[in-house]
Amino acid sequence: MIRPWEDLLTAVRGLPGVGPKMAERIALHLLRRRDDADALKSSLEEAIRCLGRCPRCGDLIETDSADGGTKDPCPACGDDSRDGKVLCVVEEIGDRQALERCRAFGGRYHVLGGALYPLDGVGPQDLTIEALLRRVSQEAVQEVILATNPTAEGETTASYLADLLKAKGLAVTRLATGLPSGSIIQYADEYTLAQALEGRRPVT
Amino acid sequence: MIRPWEDLLTAVRGLPGVGPKMAERIALHLLRRRDDADALKSSLEEAIRCLGRCPRCGDLIETDSADGGTKDPCPACGDDSRDGKVLCVVEEIGDRQALERCRAFGGRYHVLGGALYPLDGVGPQDLTIEALLRRVSQEAVQEVILATNPTAEGETTASYLADLLKAKGLAVTRLATGLPSGSIIQYADEYTLAQALEGRRPVT
Repeated sequence: MIRPWEDLLTAVRGLPGVGPKMAERIALHLLRRRDDADALKSSLEEAIRCLGRCPRCGDLIETDSADGGTKDPCPACGDDSRDGKVLCVVEEIGDRQALERCRAFGGRYHVLGGALYPLDGVGPQDLTIEALLRRVSQEAVQEVILATNPTAEGETTASYLADLLKAKGLAVTRLATGLPSGSIIQYADEYTLAQALEGRRPVT
Repeated sequence: MIRPWEDLLTAVRGLPGVGPKMAERIALHLLRRRDDADALKSSLEEAIRCLGRCPRCGDLIETDSADGGTKDPCPACGDDSRDGKVLCVVEEIGDRQALERCRAFGGRYHVLGGALYPLDGVGPQDLTIEALLRRVSQEAVQEVILATNPTAEGETTASYLADLLKAKGLAVTRLATGLPSGSIIQYADEYTLAQALEGRRPVT
């Protein structure tokens, strides 16, 4: 095989969720459509140059923009209409957006930037945990909702954080697990069903 | 939303097979893993700079490399162990590699670089059809196997090419369609079954 082609395939295969067949399709697409390749390259450069994390809430912010750069507080931190007593801790900005869409939460968010995953070398220092502990000390937080994903990594992260936060005398909660709304019991996986049974609630 | 982030998401979503959720996952991965982002950028630049199509067979070749650049004929064209009487026309290099792996073909290949897809603006001039017609005139080709995919675009391309090639007095064939080896009839889709019935062969 030709080296530059192989290198491109390797780089594309390194992206999450991209297998060998899809990598080939994407690589050929990028070679054929010069416009798309240029758009990807320049937007990636721009994003790496301009985007950073808010030192307070961990949210993705523009640190270098035409209208002045680093904003402190960031738009989310500066929004005083939010209830500062409840802090919802999420893994990534997409989680925050999803929770916002359900319109059931009026408190503030803290974005960890991922979940603990020691096998992949992601430890506490790679997440915004220090900033989170600083926040709960400095702000008027009373309850922390640990809204990390119900996956092995998300659960590990939640229990790690729960210990730290409970030691500070905070109320610590976790999103409910159970049957998704509109789902069909016979198709639910056994873990979901077990958790739905364990978490059953009295009918009032 | 922040503009550089939105631009990066748009560029990633432009890749084939990448939906909104996956685009976000890939974009966050690229922001978090600077090494992977650099590898993608540099391999893409290198591939665009160094790779081209062989003017004869349409295969992907290195046009600018440390050891001299454009090779004419390309390695595939220069391989004299192959039977020049049979030419197998494929859409992309991946198809050629798949056919090579089955070790049932000893002739030569011609890579079209895609399939006709008028809706997406891909016409005959975007494929290596001119080079194909030149080849069948200049080389000792007797049979052309149209090994484009059994999809709407592949079939359109095959019937377009079949007309041009039959007019030149060549034998034109198409890969057989039917039940995949090892498949189970009750799970086969109706088109596959219809084609398997239509193409049924006497038991000898």
